[in-house]
Amino acid sequence: MKALRFDGKLQLVRDAALPRRKDEALVQVICAGICNTDLEIVKGYAGFSGTPGHEFVGRVAESPDTSSIGRRVVGEINAGCGKCALCREGDPRHCADRTVLGIKGRDGAFAEFLSLPTSNLIEVPDGVSDETAVFVEPLAAAFNIIEQVRIGSSSDVVVVGDGKLAQLIVVALAQTGCAITVIGKHTEKLELARGFGAHRIALHATDLEAEWQGRFDVAIEASGSARGLATALRLCKPRGTIVLKSTHHGLTSLDSSVVVVNELTIVGCRCGRFAPALALIESGRVDLTKLISLRMPLEDGILAFEQASLPKTMKVLLQIA
Amino acid sequence: MKALRFDGKLQLVRDAALPRRKDEALVQVICAGICNTDLEIVKGYAGFSGTPGHEFVGRVAESPDTSSIGRRVVGEINAGCGKCALCREGDPRHCADRTVLGIKGRDGAFAEFLSLPTSNLIEVPDGVSDETAVFVEPLAAAFNIIEQVRIGSSSDVVVVGDGKLAQLIVVALAQTGCAITVIGKHTEKLELARGFGAHRIALHATDLEAEWQGRFDVAIEASGSARGLATALRLCKPRGTIVLKSTHHGLTSLDSSVVVVNELTIVGCRCGRFAPALALIESGRVDLTKLISLRMPLEDGILAFEQASLPKTMKVLLQIA
Repeated sequence: MKALRFDGKLQLVRDAALPRRKDEALVQVICAGICNTDLEIVKGYAGFSGTPGHEFVGRVAESPDTSSIGRRVVGEINAGCGKCALCREGDPRHCADRTVLGIKGRDGAFAEFLSLPTSNLIEVPDGVSDETAVFVEPLAAAFNIIEQVRIGSSSDVVVVGDGKLAQLIVVALAQTGCAITVIGKHTEKLELARGFGAHRIALHATDLEAEWQGRFDVAIEASGSARGLATALRLCKPRGTIVLKSTHHGLTSLDSSVVVVNELTIVGCRCGRFAPALALIESGRVDLTKLISLRMPLEDGILAFEQASLPKTMKVLLQIA
Repeated sequence: MKALRFDGKLQLVRDAALPRRKDEALVQVICAGICNTDLEIVKGYAGFSGTPGHEFVGRVAESPDTSSIGRRVVGEINAGCGKCALCREGDPRHCADRTVLGIKGRDGAFAEFLSLPTSNLIEVPDGVSDETAVFVEPLAAAFNIIEQVRIGSSSDVVVVGDGKLAQLIVVALAQTGCAITVIGKHTEKLELARGFGAHRIALHATDLEAEWQGRFDVAIEASGSARGLATALRLCKPRGTIVLKSTHHGLTSLDSSVVVVNELTIVGCRCGRFAPALALIESGRVDLTKLISLRMPLEDGILAFEQASLPKTMKVLLQIA
């Protein structure tokens, strides 16, 4: 099969072996999204080598559960050991021996086929298009914020960043009724955020940061830049909460004294449950296709990565089958 | 009066003006403790200039509340504006316009006299010696951890650091019944921590850090070193809590991906309420004089700072009256 492989260098391989794993389903990938984590992986993040890609919709080609063959599915990306306490409680997201699709120890979605445990797969209802189903994984990650941090209708929340993850965070936050401010660097992206439910948008500027200092109950760092954390720390009220959402390669500078003096709480937040994300997409109340900048075939995967890393680009989809 | 003053350089001034402030009490300082924050202040932390010092016991010399004159007191160090919502709720610790004794906009305790609002002063019971009363402020700061983070008898907690703040944190943690591990760099200090209630002590070593990786529910960074945060992040379980307790001048490197991937929570923690600390000291159940390395007169204040900054030194007390 064809696969986009990374091994210090990203390249298209035409004769990759099918990624069959014992007792798992083989899924033919229909469409996959390029995430910032993928862009970080090809810079060395997480030390991953193999096929990246973890946002996908596909069709079950082979499965121990024969009734699922032919069904259209999305998939939770963490596959646990199945034996530890966390896995037995049904949440392999922090299993120490987990593999993670296209991120850790398991080939991912930028290929014609991928393998996942049958329990990771969730059927996509007929009314949901391939191009919106592919957003279930990143939207679930955004929903995880409101699972981890108490945000209600009286909360004043700022999102630092206006990229594709920030947009999905706005979509998730809008479900809580909180006040949403987005600070970004691109007028068009900020306008898009307004369409998704942001009440106030602003271009980032040093004087704005000074004016809004200490104003927000919750500040969400979704810019993916090292400076974003410093901005979030500054915007947050004493005893407020900063949510760290983006993973990037390398170290970030932290003024730990600000954290101590203002008694701030920093919460790291990663993958979420698929069900609420899929339910919102199925409801049709939000049109995530607005986030798609480009659709490209797997053949043009390397070019797709280049395009995805440009500042103006939002989601790039690889159309595979 | 005599005062130790910092203005880019620490020096003893013999003719400093009495620090009288309208509607406040003037307190004659009996004894004051040198804290790591003071050592950071003379390196430039918080941009403070004036008389440092915020751990003290003293005697009221003048006061609008004449009944308090002559009483022995300790004092909460944050003085709020008295008008904002936080101050009206009785907690000026995060008032945006607060001054902080010897740290922010207000001369401190390394002088013959200091000034504080009468509402900041708490009388010290007769049974409590000057040398233990001076620990109320830092012990209150340690108690603040268990006010901010849920720690119970089933919690497995590690303290990174074995200095004077770490020791007081062990004292506070011991009140919760949690399992306490202390990782430090000095055998004698670790043995002292065991005496205060640590169940397990260990000299810091890279292989130990690897062995204990991801083991603790709560990791408290009290080493005051930039490396301490990285160690605490490593020792903490997925979805665990790291408490940042030390303030230092400058930036710390943070591997924010570890925070995101393990969904860790980092909690900054500063000043605490005096009442529980004073109650524990009054109970006589803990002998904090074990933490005193040196007692020196205010005249030798510069030498006292030098001594306090040596790795083996614990608390240095300035005996002033």
